[in-house]
Amino acid sequence: MTSKSDLTTPSFITEPATRRSFLRRAGLTALAAPAVASVLTSCSAEAAPQQAGKAGAAAGGMDHSGGTMAAHPATPEGMRAKADAMDAMHEAGIKAFPAKTEGKGNQLMTPRVEKGVKIYDLTAAPQKWETEPGKWVDAWCYNGQVPGPMIRVKEGDRVRINLTNNLTESTAIHFHGLELPFDQDGVPFITQPPVKPGAQYTYEFTVPVGNAGSHMYHSHSNSAKQVGLGLLGAFIVEPRKPRAIERVDVDYTMILNDGMHGYTLNGKGFPATEPIVAKLGQKVRIRFMNEGMMIHPMHLHGMHMTVIDKDGWAQPMPWKCDTLNIAPGERWDVIVNCNNPGTWAFHCHILPHAEGEHGMFGMVTVLIVEKPAV
Amino acid sequence: MTSKSDLTTPSFITEPATRRSFLRRAGLTALAAPAVASVLTSCSAEAAPQQAGKAGAAAGGMDHSGGTMAAHPATPEGMRAKADAMDAMHEAGIKAFPAKTEGKGNQLMTPRVEKGVKIYDLTAAPQKWETEPGKWVDAWCYNGQVPGPMIRVKEGDRVRINLTNNLTESTAIHFHGLELPFDQDGVPFITQPPVKPGAQYTYEFTVPVGNAGSHMYHSHSNSAKQVGLGLLGAFIVEPRKPRAIERVDVDYTMILNDGMHGYTLNGKGFPATEPIVAKLGQKVRIRFMNEGMMIHPMHLHGMHMTVIDKDGWAQPMPWKCDTLNIAPGERWDVIVNCNNPGTWAFHCHILPHAEGEHGMFGMVTVLIVEKPAV
Amino acid sequence: MTSKSDLTTPSFITEPATRRSFLRRAGLTALAAPAVASVLTSCSAEAAPQQAGKAGAAAGGMDHSGGTMAAHPATPEGMRAKADAMDAMHEAGIKAFPAKTEGKGNQLMTPRVEKGVKIYDLTAAPQKWETEPGKWVDAWCYNGQVPGPMIRVKEGDRVRINLTNNLTESTAIHFHGLELPFDQDGVPFITQPPVKPGAQYTYEFTVPVGNAGSHMYHSHSNSAKQVGLGLLGAFIVEPRKPRAIERVDVDYTMILNDGMHGYTLNGKGFPATEPIVAKLGQKVRIRFMNEGMMIHPMHLHGMHMTVIDKDGWAQPMPWKCDTLNIAPGERWDVIVNCNNPGTWAFHCHILPHAEGEHGMFGMVTVLIVEKPAV
Repeated sequence: MTSKSDLTTPSFITEPATRRSFLRRAGLTALAAPAVASVLTSCSAEAAPQQAGKAGAAAGGMDHSGGTMAAHPATPEGMRAKADAMDAMHEAGIKAFPAKTEGKGNQLMTPRVEKGVKIYDLTAAPQKWETEPGKWVDAWCYNGQVPGPMIRVKEGDRVRINLTNNLTESTAIHFHGLELPFDQDGVPFITQPPVKPGAQYTYEFTVPVGNAGSHMYHSHSNSAKQVGLGLLGAFIVEPRKPRAIERVDVDYTMILNDGMHGYTLNGKGFPATEPIVAKLGQKVRIRFMNEGMMIHPMHLHGMHMTVIDKDGWAQPMPWKCDTLNIAPGERWDVIVNCNNPGTWAFHCHILPHAEGEHGMFGMVTVLIVEKPAV
Repeated sequence: MTSKSDLTTPSFITEPATRRSFLRRAGLTALAAPAVASVLTSCSAEAAPQQAGKAGAAAGGMDHSGGTMAAHPATPEGMRAKADAMDAMHEAGIKAFPAKTEGKGNQLMTPRVEKGVKIYDLTAAPQKWETEPGKWVDAWCYNGQVPGPMIRVKEGDRVRINLTNNLTESTAIHFHGLELPFDQDGVPFITQPPVKPGAQYTYEFTVPVGNAGSHMYHSHSNSAKQVGLGLLGAFIVEPRKPRAIERVDVDYTMILNDGMHGYTLNGKGFPATEPIVAKLGQKVRIRFMNEGMMIHPMHLHGMHMTVIDKDGWAQPMPWKCDTLNIAPGERWDVIVNCNNPGTWAFHCHILPHAEGEHGMFGMVTVLIVEKPAV
Repeated sequence: MTSKSDLTTPSFITEPATRRSFLRRAGLTALAAPAVASVLTSCSAEAAPQQAGKAGAAAGGMDHSGGTMAAHPATPEGMRAKADAMDAMHEAGIKAFPAKTEGKGNQLMTPRVEKGVKIYDLTAAPQKWETEPGKWVDAWCYNGQVPGPMIRVKEGDRVRINLTNNLTESTAIHFHGLELPFDQDGVPFITQPPVKPGAQYTYEFTVPVGNAGSHMYHSHSNSAKQVGLGLLGAFIVEPRKPRAIERVDVDYTMILNDGMHGYTLNGKGFPATEPIVAKLGQKVRIRFMNEGMMIHPMHLHGMHMTVIDKDGWAQPMPWKCDTLNIAPGERWDVIVNCNNPGTWAFHCHILPHAEGEHGMFGMVTVLIVEKPAV
């Protein structure tokens, strides 16, 4: 089989799935809508008979479609059947992407505004959560989401958060990364009493000017369990005066997690994770947040990432990488200049967090860079 | 329940425990003395009846004191009793902080000085060590301490270390981060013979000028076991010409550990860890050192950290964060500008290293920023 | 026992093993040849009787050779015998270094050149692999090596890689860190069909200008297993215009791994790891690459490292450390100015990855800095 990038190549290779074609096929008009069609089916072996034919010619009777395979001395038929079966599982997982599941976490929440105060009502309650098709886990959610709804405000905003505790344990919310007055810090028995089951509690503060960036909110009560079950979310503070480098076309928050819900990105495991979509030439900002117990070195294929912020603070000078190690509690913001069209794998490089014998799972998604219409 | 930081708030919230009040209550005059009183009791639920009353009004009969609680339809009494019992355990842990235990590690050691040489006598020996109240572990200690006594010298100093091995195994000391002559490097069979049980061995060297910073000393013989049991300590080298950024009010060394002794900060697990105390407006330097086997991303509440040094070497430009990932063998120095009064939680953000169903434990302490007297 | 670096010291201490003497003893003329003699034997306890005598004088009858030992009240003879037995195991491991094993990975591969294209033929196949003397593991190798052969090209080079799959599973090669056209990215069912058992597949691309540095190639098919078994290698891209800082005397690639093959450096565990050898005053570049599942904070004794590149991208300003945390998928390039003569331990500082009760093993090697001939 021959596939040289500058030579004639089968269409499945030169035309990666794009958001346009993906949306057309799926009949979708916005990414937030349920994503039921695969963005990745066009490069399956079955879709490329002519490719397989070329491969057969090059490799002495081999092909990749599974149908016209000639026996190879070194690969008895039983072995080959086993390999094909494994491939079929891997392909099925990829074809299913982005798989439909019930529930979507990390949705931007619109506050009520009263007398200039942005008000967010958050209810913590148990719920079943579907991390990948058919895999339901016990979750503790804010407003039925894992991660909880995204709170997004500006420096200097006055914010009120009404927490209702419908859990069976006491709870509290810590605003991780925000430099708040002590009584708003959310640590039971240190900064406040615990919020008992059935009780409500109100946090209210002015977001400090100078404290912009990618922050988080999560339970600080019996936290290993409560955060592990899903009581966490993004708390993003927009700066009053954005830097030139943070003027981007796509602003994406990716919350990493592990533990009781498996390996997840924004509460879902592959193939139920969400693709990130940009057009060729656009800039994407990714806000990595780790709410788990393990490091996750996230690796982007095809393009590098320029690291601009750590925990909401500008790095003194941006620096580049393709694999960024993100530890629990950390946030790292990166910029990707989408100059390479394709459907780029984007995954944790601790490989057992991303792929098994049955195919890719867990901490895998893609960054789709769409080519312009011809 | 309502607690708005800019509005009327109960006194337990607006007046965090301060070192001053803590010391007054405890009758202590120095932090190095046994710390027997809790710095954190003033914000327990029991201490805030008026708060509980307000909460009751706001939340339909709920309060936080456990006494006058009205039943909530969603929380049967059995469930509520269970939640209360959990809270009681969490509160008890916090009230106990800083808990008294026998033994204190990482104490600054005063050398004998002979003919201009600073002489440190270190004896390695087995000993029981109390990591938290009532939890005694088998330890191997230098001079009866875990971590061993802090050695603190200046660039260019002549230093002699007399090691006496009262262990049942051979040992040796490696000066981690110091760029010494080969024969002083402390690796048995490579740079020296092992120091047999009952034997003595002397290291002597001039601390290189240009090698200032936060270094360590520890066994390099059967090291996974010997360091794991406690044969480790801080070796701090002061520069001849300190930079402006390192002129601080409080200089604190925090040695992280895991493994056989549990999750510890300076040899103790919460609530037996030690609070760091500063006054509003002061600068604190924290020298993180990881002598364990795992990463520990340390998260400070309420204020950010400015990272200045890695392994004793100045970072080209300081950078900011609130969660700093520290890997085994690494040292990171940070500065905290204490501009936010309160008793700030400071813990490893791998949550199972810091909190369990029974409350906070392990790698948890606080940074107390005291308000000036009125 | 006294050993002061500026005073009279036994010859075994002042004359660390050098590459010269090591090669002389071993009759070797190049490092790539099998290294059968120990570089570390000269500092064993047995080699230093006069040292032992001094120790005996200082420590009341103790010595380090085991022969003339007087009983110590605190160390009954049984205990001492046990300690001696442990020392003997530790010494034996060090004496065996660098131990001869079959097979050497990471060997520089010379391409065929046709019409200006550098052609690399890689065959993936199962094979037994000896990680340390007598320890044979199941491996999947490129061209019989773990890591696979080093590919080393220049920016702008045209490269063709012919992959033959002699495995029992489908496979594919991802060029980790290279920003290639989408169809060359090596992800089955996304960028190409899987390469079936018995089949061949050809990758061909121009190495992007501006994409120099330390990259990798590895399987991206059932990758947790396939990379874990050894399907990985270095892909180094030399810049057209090297920076001054990267003009070095020794350019060394160190691939870290863990998992199925144990803890390894370039496919071998101590004492079968390879020493890095330089002359006093030379500069060594080390290209760390992590192909495992765990972090490995690599610690160099005796000298610091200056970090210049991350994932092939220049850090904005070089920075110094002695312990560098390397996460899976990451590459970090450092420079060592070899200004301190000796045979310096160089190991992962997660101590259980480097030493056990039976001695050093796994992720341990040395950097030898040779003194000039007198």
